[in-house]
Amino acid sequence: MPDSEFEIINRYFARKAFASASKNIILGIGDDAAVLSTPADKQLVVSIDTLISGVHFPTQTSAADIAWKALAVNLSDLAAMGAEPVWFTLALSLPEVDHDWLAAFSESLAKISSAYHIPLVGGDTTRGALSITIQVAGQVQADRALLRSGARPGDQVFVSGNIGDAALGLHALQQQFERTEDITYLLERLNRPQPRVEAGQRLTDVASACIDISDGLFADLLHILNASGVGARLQLDHIPLSEAAKHFLSDRPQLLPTVYNRGDDYELCFCVPKEKGAQLDAIEKRLDCRLTHIGEIVAGNELQVFDIEGKLLDLRNDSYDHFVEKI
Amino acid sequence: MPDSEFEIINRYFARKAFASASKNIILGIGDDAAVLSTPADKQLVVSIDTLISGVHFPTQTSAADIAWKALAVNLSDLAAMGAEPVWFTLALSLPEVDHDWLAAFSESLAKISSAYHIPLVGGDTTRGALSITIQVAGQVQADRALLRSGARPGDQVFVSGNIGDAALGLHALQQQFERTEDITYLLERLNRPQPRVEAGQRLTDVASACIDISDGLFADLLHILNASGVGARLQLDHIPLSEAAKHFLSDRPQLLPTVYNRGDDYELCFCVPKEKGAQLDAIEKRLDCRLTHIGEIVAGNELQVFDIEGKLLDLRNDSYDHFVEKI
Repeated sequence: MPDSEFEIINRYFARKAFASASKNIILGIGDDAAVLSTPADKQLVVSIDTLISGVHFPTQTSAADIAWKALAVNLSDLAAMGAEPVWFTLALSLPEVDHDWLAAFSESLAKISSAYHIPLVGGDTTRGALSITIQVAGQVQADRALLRSGARPGDQVFVSGNIGDAALGLHALQQQFERTEDITYLLERLNRPQPRVEAGQRLTDVASACIDISDGLFADLLHILNASGVGARLQLDHIPLSEAAKHFLSDRPQLLPTVYNRGDDYELCFCVPKEKGAQLDAIEKRLDCRLTHIGEIVAGNELQVFDIEGKLLDLRNDSYDHFVEKI
Repeated sequence: MPDSEFEIINRYFARKAFASASKNIILGIGDDAAVLSTPADKQLVVSIDTLISGVHFPTQTSAADIAWKALAVNLSDLAAMGAEPVWFTLALSLPEVDHDWLAAFSESLAKISSAYHIPLVGGDTTRGALSITIQVAGQVQADRALLRSGARPGDQVFVSGNIGDAALGLHALQQQFERTEDITYLLERLNRPQPRVEAGQRLTDVASACIDISDGLFADLLHILNASGVGARLQLDHIPLSEAAKHFLSDRPQLLPTVYNRGDDYELCFCVPKEKGAQLDAIEKRLDCRLTHIGEIVAGNELQVFDIEGKLLDLRNDSYDHFVEKI
């Protein structure tokens, strides 16, 4: 029996324990296209992202980690828009039919699909170099999506969670460091990002601008500054680091720029008008992640970062860009 | 200046002469995600398809042909559902930044985007083996999408346009035949399919089931039969061929099965209850393609094909399947 495209879809993607179809899903996998409805008071938010083996994840990454990350990075785009996940489609390109790989991939994809309540509604399976393209759709109340363009001078700049774990984890992996407890934590952050979907949805009430940190904190904040036509001043020592990152960096202080200039954090960076501070505090209490005040939006168009002694740093923005350098 | 992802998107995809944004597009390219609205009485129809160099098109295919086909095959899925195209997203993976290639690709993509009134609202550009994934969205009146599952015994089976041109064109290309006028026509049909978007939308009034022919006429009709729980009887000599295909086949009768068993036609195969025949005639008059009656839906679950002498053919369904064989 040949391992046909139809059989692969049926066996691994059409019957698995994915998030169950909601009332938005009129027709899922199995016809020429899926049919979906959007409530009349909502708008759809869509994003598409490709992960390629050897570019977006090291070739030795497990099928389970790849599946998790492929959906997580897309969910992170929805989080940055303040959207509630509603459905996704998958285009999977595989060099060969490897049933162990497919079983592990689809099981992990089903797990994150369930965790974030986002059903798989369609896809395409082809033969080629290993690559995973996912398009996610979320929904927001009409005209309530969080954009990059709303930051105003006087707003405060925040980040969710901690910054830099994934970049340090990748460094440890590339340098083949021994798996200490710290490094295991950093690798978990690299391979299993937790998109801040709930935080993003709650922030629609208070944030003036938002982005998810995929390219690096400085590079992504610059996207907000450019889109909003403003500048920002950050306090370097206010940027939150995990205990594992602090330990790891204590022996390797030369890696500190990596923390700010490399991506894969999938935390949110967002701006909040000062007068909404109390509202933001109330939101933070209901979240499972910290929200940390790291700086201020100012007039101008520059990102200025000050160290603990008040000295302005010389930023050399070497954020990861797919056509400039690779892992 | 590095050829960064941002520059590529800005230069080739954000400012081009793509179909202009409609009132459905609240926010297009440039934020973490696009924001879209769907009219309250409509449902969204979405499909995702990947084209990979060397699998879905020969490696020597021009950038312009690749762009056209990548969107056309996705539009064909919308046609099969009877949907009006509304927006699409693009995930493009490229081995290197080749400005000539990108210019030709984006110009051709803009052309088909305009021709079918479907704006590009978002995308992702990555480095990797050449591959193009497009997700299209269309809209239909609520619960009026054309499905595969509605065929009933007594319905008549039709196809749009002509069958087999693309498969014969591919054969001519692979065998490096000299470019006669016929072969030029067949290659045009292979490289620049015209998805039957208008036909699909009009057929929502009369068709009981519909599919687009991407895998091959027999294979795709079998999808309708399986989804509807019915069989069909076809008359082989009723299946419409172009003049070019007839000429080409007259010297190579052994290629006849290729016409029915290979895909890439992107015509529609659909079923219509007999009593709606007059309505279908009226629809055909307003279309730029013929609709040809090729057989009947019957009880059972078999596809039976009869030759001109009334003899039942032995079908060996060798339709193209991505994991079974390649171009």
